Amino acid sequence: MRILLDVMGGDLPPRELVKGGIAAGRRLGVDMLFAGEPRAIRAALALGHEREGARLSILPASEIITMDEPPVRAVRGKRDSSLVRGLSALRDGEADAFVSPGNTGAVVAGSIFTLGRIAGIPRPGLAVVLPSLTGEDFLVIDVGANVDCAPLHLAHFALMGATYVRDVLGQREPKIGLLNIGTEKAKGNKLNYHAFDILEKGPLPFVGNVEGHHLLTERPVDVVVCDGFVGNIFLKAIEGGVGAVSALLRKSISHRLFARLGALLLRRVFAELRETLSYERRGGAPLLGVDGIVVIAHGRSNAAAIDGAIAVAHRAVQSRLKERLERGIGGWGGDGS
Amino acid sequence: MRILLDVMGGDLPPRELVKGGIAAGRRLGVDMLFAGEPRAIRAALALGHEREGARLSILPASEIITMDEPPVRAVRGKRDSSLVRGLSALRDGEADAFVSPGNTGAVVAGSIFTLGRIAGIPRPGLAVVLPSLTGEDFLVIDVGANVDCAPLHLAHFALMGATYVRDVLGQREPKIGLLNIGTEKAKGNKLNYHAFDILEKGPLPFVGNVEGHHLLTERPVDVVVCDGFVGNIFLKAIEGGVGAVSALLRKSISHRLFARLGALLLRRVFAELRETLSYERRGGAPLLGVDGIVVIAHGRSNAAAIDGAIAVAHRAVQSRLKERLERGIGGWGGDGS
Repeated sequence: MRILLDVMGGDLPPRELVKGGIAAGRRLGVDMLFAGEPRAIRAALALGHEREGARLSILPASEIITMDEPPVRAVRGKRDSSLVRGLSALRDGEADAFVSPGNTGAVVAGSIFTLGRIAGIPRPGLAVVLPSLTGEDFLVIDVGANVDCAPLHLAHFALMGATYVRDVLGQREPKIGLLNIGTEKAKGNKLNYHAFDILEKGPLPFVGNVEGHHLLTERPVDVVVCDGFVGNIFLKAIEGGVGAVSALLRKSISHRLFARLGALLLRRVFAELRETLSYERRGGAPLLGVDGIVVIAHGRSNAAAIDGAIAVAHRAVQSRLKERLERGIGGWGGDGS
Repeated sequence: MRILLDVMGGDLPPRELVKGGIAAGRRLGVDMLFAGEPRAIRAALALGHEREGARLSILPASEIITMDEPPVRAVRGKRDSSLVRGLSALRDGEADAFVSPGNTGAVVAGSIFTLGRIAGIPRPGLAVVLPSLTGEDFLVIDVGANVDCAPLHLAHFALMGATYVRDVLGQREPKIGLLNIGTEKAKGNKLNYHAFDILEKGPLPFVGNVEGHHLLTERPVDVVVCDGFVGNIFLKAIEGGVGAVSALLRKSISHRLFARLGALLLRRVFAELRETLSYERRGGAPLLGVDGIVVIAHGRSNAAAIDGAIAVAHRAVQSRLKERLERGIGGWGGDGS
């Protein structure tokens, strides 16, 4: 297996991303292909006491698509960017998966243009795996690939999310919920009402609406479905809530002697807390519905996050995710195959 | 001043809500009119060593609109509910404001039917005041009154939110942001793009898009504008994030002896934390744009929360909010009058 890593376009420099790629390649036993500026990549390899070769190779690209560029224009205009070169190489079979910490919109647009969509899926969905306090993870789809959705798109997200959870994460009978502002069918906006209707009549194990305030603690479903605008707002608000508590604790603690003593004792607990809730550091978000395995890592990804994102891609390739999604569109098979 | 409190329809019994009403009435020096089942209200007054009279009076209502009822049907069908009776009494001048911890959709629908809208405002917006780590609060509007909005509705929310923040909360030059999934104008969905356009060209101090992950910590604006579906998802996700950290800390702490010692020392810090972030306990959400002062309290409101919601209504009446909103529609006056 060979995984392609876009080492430009993230917030951190190529040397940090290459470092994560070297680590993942070694740990998972996969070949890595680094897309980007060859000199920067060679320097990063040297830093890691590695050399260019079959296991660690380079796909030269001179341009960089930055975080703020309008996605479609960037992808159309920068043909020699690591992003466009990488996706073209994936399409041409030079790699089994593509991982990028770059501009999310540009990766989505580039994937659609270059790879195309899986037949029957008009809109791909970006899925993110979140931890919960029950110890089991759950999936949210879409978290930003499509910000203006029709009800049928949400039904497709449900199907793809359920397939991913079942075939990649190994959850046998994934339950699906629709992210809404109340549990009754009549709650929420028109989009959700009609999506509820489609899901209710469809073959998927749909349990109804779910609300955001107890997903992390109670984890009522395996797959949470929403449009990409709402999903992204949801993710960032969770991040905001967690961040506010952490910041407030830090602030309060630094102001009190006794609390400071308490904080020393609580240090390990805090470390666990960060570990459990830092979904950003848990790897990448698979873009489901495009004709190839594409994983989008957080823009702020460091080496460890890139390592995690490559593991996500590795698992998707091993599970033959693309074939399973293609087959999934034909109907939800009861035998799980 | 006389404030009407709907004491049925909340999650807690009338005696708890009446208790909050008695406390607020005494503290703020306002008369209270309790809408609901007279026997239950009299029993609650007796518990508080109070009697029915001019300062604490009763508006009899025999029906209850529950949390799960479809709003429009409930409001049309239950004419003798505390909610409908209360709003009618407000319209007829028997009180200066109406406070309810009941079914949000029903309060919104009932307010529109019974009170009507302020001229020029097609859709009312529900506003909530959130605390931030900077020590200053900010307003989010709409958090659930309108789940399917047009761009112009968002512009009206901005205007009403800014008026409230300026004239009720006393922030001289409120800055307005649009809740989005990125900061550039081109980010987000069509609704936000067109609302950005209107706000950008309008007279309000609009600063652009804001993202949800740093609102609580950095508080970049005074007023955050969004459609009611997104606003409600945002609120519940914040609640979920905060709740998850708290639950995780509790869980981790109870499992470790040293951590338990630390927790004792940190007890006061945790109390502060809860106090700062518990926006639910900070009172009620004003429904802006209907022709009367209506404040919706959380369904789980206890006496203290009801007391807080009454204080919100009291302040709105004192600030002549309705007149200021009516005048605000005519143009954003630079002199603040």
